[in-house]
Amino acid sequence: MVRRDLFGVTKKGIAGSLAHEGAQMTSYRAPLADIDFTLNHVVDLASIAKLNGFQHADPSTVRDLLEEAGRFFAEVIAPLNVIGDRQGSRLQADGTVRTPDGFKEAYAKFVEAGWGGAHVSEEWGGGGLPYTVGVVLQEMFKSANMAFSLCPLLTQAGIEALTRHGSPEQQATYLHKLVSGVWSGTMCLTEPHAGSDVGALSTRAEPQDDGSYRIFGQKIFITWGEHDLTENIIHLVLARTPGSPPGTKGISLFIVPKFIPDQAGNPGLRNDLKVVSLEHKLGIHASPTCVMSFGDDGEGATAYLIGEEQAGMRYMFTMMNNARLGVAIEGLAISERVYQQALDFAGVRKQGRAVGAASDSPIIAHPDVRRMLLTIKAYVEAMRGLLYTCAETFDRERHAEDAGEREAASELVALLTPISKAWSTDLGVELSSLGIQVHGGMGYVEETGIAQFYRDSRIAPIYEGTNGIQAIDLVLRKLPVRQGEVARDLFDRISATIASAPSELSDLATALETGLESLRTASDHILSSLLSDPNQALAGATPYLRMFGTVLGGWFHLRSAIAASSLISSGQGDAAFLDGRIGTARFYCRQLLPLATGLLPAVLAPEADLAIAGLFPPTN
Amino acid sequence: MVRRDLFGVTKKGIAGSLAHEGAQMTSYRAPLADIDFTLNHVVDLASIAKLNGFQHADPSTVRDLLEEAGRFFAEVIAPLNVIGDRQGSRLQADGTVRTPDGFKEAYAKFVEAGWGGAHVSEEWGGGGLPYTVGVVLQEMFKSANMAFSLCPLLTQAGIEALTRHGSPEQQATYLHKLVSGVWSGTMCLTEPHAGSDVGALSTRAEPQDDGSYRIFGQKIFITWGEHDLTENIIHLVLARTPGSPPGTKGISLFIVPKFIPDQAGNPGLRNDLKVVSLEHKLGIHASPTCVMSFGDDGEGATAYLIGEEQAGMRYMFTMMNNARLGVAIEGLAISERVYQQALDFAGVRKQGRAVGAASDSPIIAHPDVRRMLLTIKAYVEAMRGLLYTCAETFDRERHAEDAGEREAASELVALLTPISKAWSTDLGVELSSLGIQVHGGMGYVEETGIAQFYRDSRIAPIYEGTNGIQAIDLVLRKLPVRQGEVARDLFDRISATIASAPSELSDLATALETGLESLRTASDHILSSLLSDPNQALAGATPYLRMFGTVLGGWFHLRSAIAASSLISSGQGDAAFLDGRIGTARFYCRQLLPLATGLLPAVLAPEADLAIAGLFPPTN
Repeated sequence: MVRRDLFGVTKKGIAGSLAHEGAQMTSYRAPLADIDFTLNHVVDLASIAKLNGFQHADPSTVRDLLEEAGRFFAEVIAPLNVIGDRQGSRLQADGTVRTPDGFKEAYAKFVEAGWGGAHVSEEWGGGGLPYTVGVVLQEMFKSANMAFSLCPLLTQAGIEALTRHGSPEQQATYLHKLVSGVWSGTMCLTEPHAGSDVGALSTRAEPQDDGSYRIFGQKIFITWGEHDLTENIIHLVLARTPGSPPGTKGISLFIVPKFIPDQAGNPGLRNDLKVVSLEHKLGIHASPTCVMSFGDDGEGATAYLIGEEQAGMRYMFTMMNNARLGVAIEGLAISERVYQQALDFAGVRKQGRAVGAASDSPIIAHPDVRRMLLTIKAYVEAMRGLLYTCAETFDRERHAEDAGEREAASELVALLTPISKAWSTDLGVELSSLGIQVHGGMGYVEETGIAQFYRDSRIAPIYEGTNGIQAIDLVLRKLPVRQGEVARDLFDRISATIASAPSELSDLATALETGLESLRTASDHILSSLLSDPNQALAGATPYLRMFGTVLGGWFHLRSAIAASSLISSGQGDAAFLDGRIGTARFYCRQLLPLATGLLPAVLAPEADLAIAGLFPPTN
Repeated sequence: MVRRDLFGVTKKGIAGSLAHEGAQMTSYRAPLADIDFTLNHVVDLASIAKLNGFQHADPSTVRDLLEEAGRFFAEVIAPLNVIGDRQGSRLQADGTVRTPDGFKEAYAKFVEAGWGGAHVSEEWGGGGLPYTVGVVLQEMFKSANMAFSLCPLLTQAGIEALTRHGSPEQQATYLHKLVSGVWSGTMCLTEPHAGSDVGALSTRAEPQDDGSYRIFGQKIFITWGEHDLTENIIHLVLARTPGSPPGTKGISLFIVPKFIPDQAGNPGLRNDLKVVSLEHKLGIHASPTCVMSFGDDGEGATAYLIGEEQAGMRYMFTMMNNARLGVAIEGLAISERVYQQALDFAGVRKQGRAVGAASDSPIIAHPDVRRMLLTIKAYVEAMRGLLYTCAETFDRERHAEDAGEREAASELVALLTPISKAWSTDLGVELSSLGIQVHGGMGYVEETGIAQFYRDSRIAPIYEGTNGIQAIDLVLRKLPVRQGEVARDLFDRISATIASAPSELSDLATALETGLESLRTASDHILSSLLSDPNQALAGATPYLRMFGTVLGGWFHLRSAIAASSLISSGQGDAAFLDGRIGTARFYCRQLLPLATGLLPAVLAPEADLAIAGLFPPTN
């Protein structure tokens, strides 16, 4: 809890007095009640636990496990968030990267507890839990310490690529180490001229007689590219082999270990790769963002091809889609953290007298402050519904018995991924900004801690494909699948929820119906535009994605409210908690959801609106 | 211009190569064409120049002056923006504050040129120009270097208070020095327990036999409270005299000079006040935000009462309203700067091939990037229309011959002030975030410079009354004036513009009509709620203010488009520029303005939506 003497300013001033409160102010509590409600009443954990291989993940076991996880992330990982921001990871003169104080020890505990591999198959030493549980662990890690969480996130992407595309020998060499977290992974895609346009990369891979390759080139923006947490770092690198066609078709994916594993599988020879510099970033200071150089010493970095040559982009998308969901969780996780801190602050900070109050009120008594807090809370619950649904669908894609169900799940998760990534990460930024606003002037002082979330959250709309790229992906690739029938099936499910709403929730259902109508209109417009002029569809892509996310949020809220209402009727659950869920759902549907319809004109507007001369020349 | 070798990465990496480009990347060009168009075709500078005392401010003279000012701020002030951010102002061991390298010299040039007093009466050594011109100078300064601009902004507020409420002797002692900028000013309001609730302050002032006072207390968040730019600093301090009633009624306003002026008017004895610490802030690092202590040495700081005892809050509002417009300009100014940098970047950064393009395209070829740029540009133009209109109305309030016109102007500027402050500063944050997004990964690296705007802009929604306070001010105090007739008169003017739109702009007019209808409905709802339940009106205050600003933006765009269309018809002006203005207006009215109607449900929703149990307890 925030201490009530928070504003007892000494002669050292605000900064001096707040500095001593840092750890307590930003203390994180895993939101177990909301998580549990979402897992069991918005998504269907019980049915996931019936899928092949997940029988041990029954709701009760999962509840115990998440309680333990909540303690771990709150007690071990969260206290390092502020120190990580202040110290940052630093490049040493000897070319190593030193992480902030305490990270190494905390990471060792993370490995010891096995959280990183919880949802990886037991075949590779993982916990064999559904991703529906794994997503919760990711949320907790990211709420506790977003910069720190990126190390396991990238490792996870590597695990995903190797389990699906690695050779048995590669799997045997790398997977257990990555799953346990004893080694970490990176994704090396970006080059100075090849950011969103990955196909423009020029790093080259030369085949050797022994079947390995030698890699030469420079990569930028390599997250956790070098650090002192693990004994080895496994880089997955995109490069071109000789004679490859230009663009994305000519790209291959390689394993490039920092230390080449010896016969016993232990770190052996130091490979020819190094970190050249670290970026000075707006946020996530604890996460070392590296410029990496491969083959600088002349011989090339030893590399091992994954799968076939020139199939690298396809394999990379395996990692990217997974990583995109991981990034989406950052939007949720940081917003949850912002909510907790803003709520604490609003409950103790007294300023002014609310209308009708007899004495000075905590600022939460002011309607406008409650609006800010509710806005954050309502979006957090909507995002949690969406992202846990993605995870559940991902589990069905891989574990459902019926092939048709697996296929349908695959299509749905593909559709939801760009929406989840862009909508959640845009919200993460907006809600962090709102969290600062709740704090007033105190929010602008770094010691309060809330500004860090505003800085940290800003990367998420950019990496793993900018949110503009997500919108393009949605309208050019995902929406058109089966001529839009995947989306229409989803809309029909939303309609069915609306039809099933009890009368006391009819105002929510009506609002959702309006939003859904707009979304159907927008979708039809984009699908028909694609046939004649893709630029017309692209012009409305971003407002369309935002609208889609907003309507989905309404769907999850209505489902929450229906479930909560039913639990209350049957006398189950904590009535105060359930009333709160219904109240938040009502706020969302009546006050935030109408913004979806406000976006419709932007989706429908002619592309010519964006093609004006007005952008050039500059304003004088 | 951005150099095309910007992304030629050396072995030092992105950071290394960008560092050398910093000054060029963030170069500022005063947007003279847009300024000129707004002054002459959205507001009516020619008619302001006809007002008593402003005859020398004819459009042609103003154009020349602004061109010179544009050069000054671009060449002298803007290059210090980045260094100001990196070095920050620093508290020295001897209690002085050292500003970043170059600030002292640049400030001297600012004083020498007389820009600070340009719109102050010639009686006090000012330039006697209308505020309609002064607002442009403020915009330029803030675009060039927001942190730096705060020093003259606070001085300006002091000038305003002294010209209106100071005694002739006080005016003679202080005004020339403040107007010339040889001395600077501060506003000392906030205390640890008294932020938005100014009435809770406890600094005390004890009367002395000679008519002066002695002040004891601590103030926080004092912008430019101590620095090395001027030979003296004049603090305007709110404090309580003995026996005063609690709350805002018992507050008096004092002059507390750092050096007490001697008989000759020069800085004399050092007063008993000092800076205790500087805040470590998210942004505006060059602006020293001080914890100030008065009377620490025991005798109290020597102070001089302004006007009457216990009238301090009223006087302070004189300064605040002025300062609120100044802060509103920060939203405009930083968005303009963001636009320039994002546009430059988008024109040279090549990524991917746009649909239909034969080779790699600059990212501006992608519709979604153009949407981001147009969104920034459209809001910038809307804000400029609003803020210059505020300035024009402010000039009419003070200089119109007709008393009725002065009164109407006074009511209008009072209504527009909270909207201008909150709407513009919220947009400043949102558009800075969009500016980062245009830059992709490069935007998250501090060397690119765009992240500074995201950090700097975030203070503006907070200070001079948080934006929540502005919304309360709007619905509780400004909207109810004359039972809402001030607002309705304004709406009727908007209707008249709609009626006057030529047929080729009918789509814009229709969109504005829809927005205006929503605004009328919302206004009527709030006015009627005020009679029964103020909390109901307060609950919708923030979305109402946003809607109001958005509709006003549409009004200014329609007026711009009508003027541009008419100029084109008559063969006047630069057709490409005018087409651009019409295009931006069309984009705004068709794509951004509909969001106003999307906010209507939130304004109309029952206050009970915000009073739910769901906020407490926290999420577990």
